Amino acid sequence: MSDFPVFQAAERIKNTCNPIRNYVESVLPKIDITLYKDTRPADNLNLTLGDPTLFSEFQTNPEILQKCADGVGKIDGYTDLIGKPEIRQAVAERYKFQNNPNVKVDESDVFLTFGCSMGIYLSVATLANPGDNFLFPSPGFPLMVTVGSNLGIDAKFYDLMEDKDWEANLEQMEKLIDDKTRFIYICNPSNPLSSLWTKKHMLDIIDFCKRHNNLPIVADETYEHMPYPGEKFYSFGELTDTVPVVIISGMSKRWLVPGWRTAWLTLVGKKGVFDEVKQGLRNLLSFILMPNTIVAGNQVEMLKMNDDYIDEKMRLCSERFKLLKELVHDVKGIKLKEAKAAFYAAVGIDYECIDITSSQEFATKLLQEENVSVFPGELFFGKNFFRIIMCADEPVIREFSVRIRRFCERHQKKQ
Amino acid sequence: MSDFPVFQAAERIKNTCNPIRNYVESVLPKIDITLYKDTRPADNLNLTLGDPTLFSEFQTNPEILQKCADGVGKIDGYTDLIGKPEIRQAVAERYKFQNNPNVKVDESDVFLTFGCSMGIYLSVATLANPGDNFLFPSPGFPLMVTVGSNLGIDAKFYDLMEDKDWEANLEQMEKLIDDKTRFIYICNPSNPLSSLWTKKHMLDIIDFCKRHNNLPIVADETYEHMPYPGEKFYSFGELTDTVPVVIISGMSKRWLVPGWRTAWLTLVGKKGVFDEVKQGLRNLLSFILMPNTIVAGNQVEMLKMNDDYIDEKMRLCSERFKLLKELVHDVKGIKLKEAKAAFYAAVGIDYECIDITSSQEFATKLLQEENVSVFPGELFFGKNFFRIIMCADEPVIREFSVRIRRFCERHQKKQ
Repeated sequence: MSDFPVFQAAERIKNTCNPIRNYVESVLPKIDITLYKDTRPADNLNLTLGDPTLFSEFQTNPEILQKCADGVGKIDGYTDLIGKPEIRQAVAERYKFQNNPNVKVDESDVFLTFGCSMGIYLSVATLANPGDNFLFPSPGFPLMVTVGSNLGIDAKFYDLMEDKDWEANLEQMEKLIDDKTRFIYICNPSNPLSSLWTKKHMLDIIDFCKRHNNLPIVADETYEHMPYPGEKFYSFGELTDTVPVVIISGMSKRWLVPGWRTAWLTLVGKKGVFDEVKQGLRNLLSFILMPNTIVAGNQVEMLKMNDDYIDEKMRLCSERFKLLKELVHDVKGIKLKEAKAAFYAAVGIDYECIDITSSQEFATKLLQEENVSVFPGELFFGKNFFRIIMCADEPVIREFSVRIRRFCERHQKKQ
Repeated sequence: MSDFPVFQAAERIKNTCNPIRNYVESVLPKIDITLYKDTRPADNLNLTLGDPTLFSEFQTNPEILQKCADGVGKIDGYTDLIGKPEIRQAVAERYKFQNNPNVKVDESDVFLTFGCSMGIYLSVATLANPGDNFLFPSPGFPLMVTVGSNLGIDAKFYDLMEDKDWEANLEQMEKLIDDKTRFIYICNPSNPLSSLWTKKHMLDIIDFCKRHNNLPIVADETYEHMPYPGEKFYSFGELTDTVPVVIISGMSKRWLVPGWRTAWLTLVGKKGVFDEVKQGLRNLLSFILMPNTIVAGNQVEMLKMNDDYIDEKMRLCSERFKLLKELVHDVKGIKLKEAKAAFYAAVGIDYECIDITSSQEFATKLLQEENVSVFPGELFFGKNFFRIIMCADEPVIREFSVRIRRFCERHQKKQ
């Protein structure tokens, strides 16, 4: 009998890791926070996770909670593999685009998923083979790159242009695309940027896809219908009847229940185009099975609630953003980028001005010196910014402005 | 601009399908049920799905439902990637084996999963590389074979011996194992057989693993602690301190809530042996994220409830089984196999006696002629039996006995 072995884990997972979770669970806890303990503020300002429920003014709507509690016990057993038909129908209703009559979405086009994360996994696993690639925004929410790496499918990065409202660099995309490119991934409104594309730019993207044999769009619209007041959100599904669109969305963000893992994938395209993909999704879901049934009990009612609650939250977010902009507009070394939707804001770093050379270094020192936690841009394949969340309480935003000012002053480059 | 294409789905998922879900959703609905419409009973006896909540006497414990409803709103945001520590601790408590003091299970050994199905996926994806293989029971619950096929990892089938209380054929296993074999998969109590191994046989399996460089055991114990009265369940985790054991289990079956998708993976082994695997699981879960948080609200309390409720259900199951055995003992052409645990029973088919040549044909004709739905053995890589569920109401069991008798009489081979 041989010695007791230490397992090798499978190769494919050794280096496949979601950089955000890795940062939260492995990098952050290892940062030495004792270096400046005499001057460092005692309370941590945590502006990292996109979880609104951590903040007092972004709690889940009590009406939703009541509906959920009332639904417990309605369904405790298995449902349809891809979700209950009436729930899928209620989701489909959300994608009835009046201006796009050639595209009909019905319940057979909707697949309930275990969080938007699973929507991302299913998209890649269903649309691409090992050796294929997809176009991916930089900066962008990194999960799809992680999944692709696990499945042997490459990301080709297209730039979002900082000085052009974070629009995609179409010229660059023309050069990136090749005969192994299976789709373009888009996240709009953007996580991490909270930018929101204009209809015109979205039509330009669609035009690009048309010119490339109707390259499918995987549109991560997790933050759909979460624009700031005065801004307007369009779904890619309503702007084309030729380019196939796979929409990833769910209840997590807009209903303020990320822990519920209640989401969906919606296929928007002409009749028949998704037939093979539908069977593929069904095959994949046949070994993952259906989402949990507790939310399902009253989910149709939840889906039909009006937007008043989230609209008010977005108004709050936009006020926080305006406040912060006012508070830090004259801080040298950073520049708050315009936010138009969702919970985030990108803070640009001016490396000409401060004695720091990467966003990761910036985030580390900010935590060490000022006890402020932010996500460095590197987590999103960017380097000139860090991400903060805009749903924090107002005193937190104010205190952040004080600390970031002090931090930047301390780190001004010597002239 | 080219014509609108029909997508090809990715190769890896085209032929990867869970045979059980495929049977329920694609095969069953296509069976022509009009052939014998004049004589066919109008009401369907559905003895297929292992979902106890479909039957009046196997409803979820109201106390559990109340705890769940009371927990709504406690956690709506993200939790730890692998589940809340206090829940993992409560699961770990369930694996404190008094007779196996060298093995300590704590919360770091427990990973909360989205259903036992995900436990199966995670086991294969973490322990094996493409080109590797695992030993798999025939008959057995097929999901792991589906997952393996998706990941390029082969199943090598070992027989469960019908005439020896469905014990594994160890002699055959010795011949099957090779240097690419990464683990042995075991499902005990067995789905589909409802058999239960003796401690002695389990020790023989462990001995086999020891002789093969401590081959890990992936023990699917989804039906743990669900023996019939008078029978005793052992976990593989309590019988070895040298062979590493990965236990798959969850609340689905024992707490009668399969739709909740609330399960766990527990690593049982000497300190350090699972270190790499733990990191691998964490990596994989970093792009799937944590289970839903609704159950989590009061899950610790649920896990600590005593066994009275399920014990009573198992008593009911065993009575149903005894009743059916009595009712069909003299039916020529079938033989009810001994059940000792869980919700199922295997009904052997005597092809010498009846004019039918496969379990699939048997199931199809039984549905066409007698409106009884059962799972053919082929779904579980067996051919001499079909699976029925034992949690159906007593009148259903009685009616089944009438119809199966009539069916078998009709199909006796001409002498």
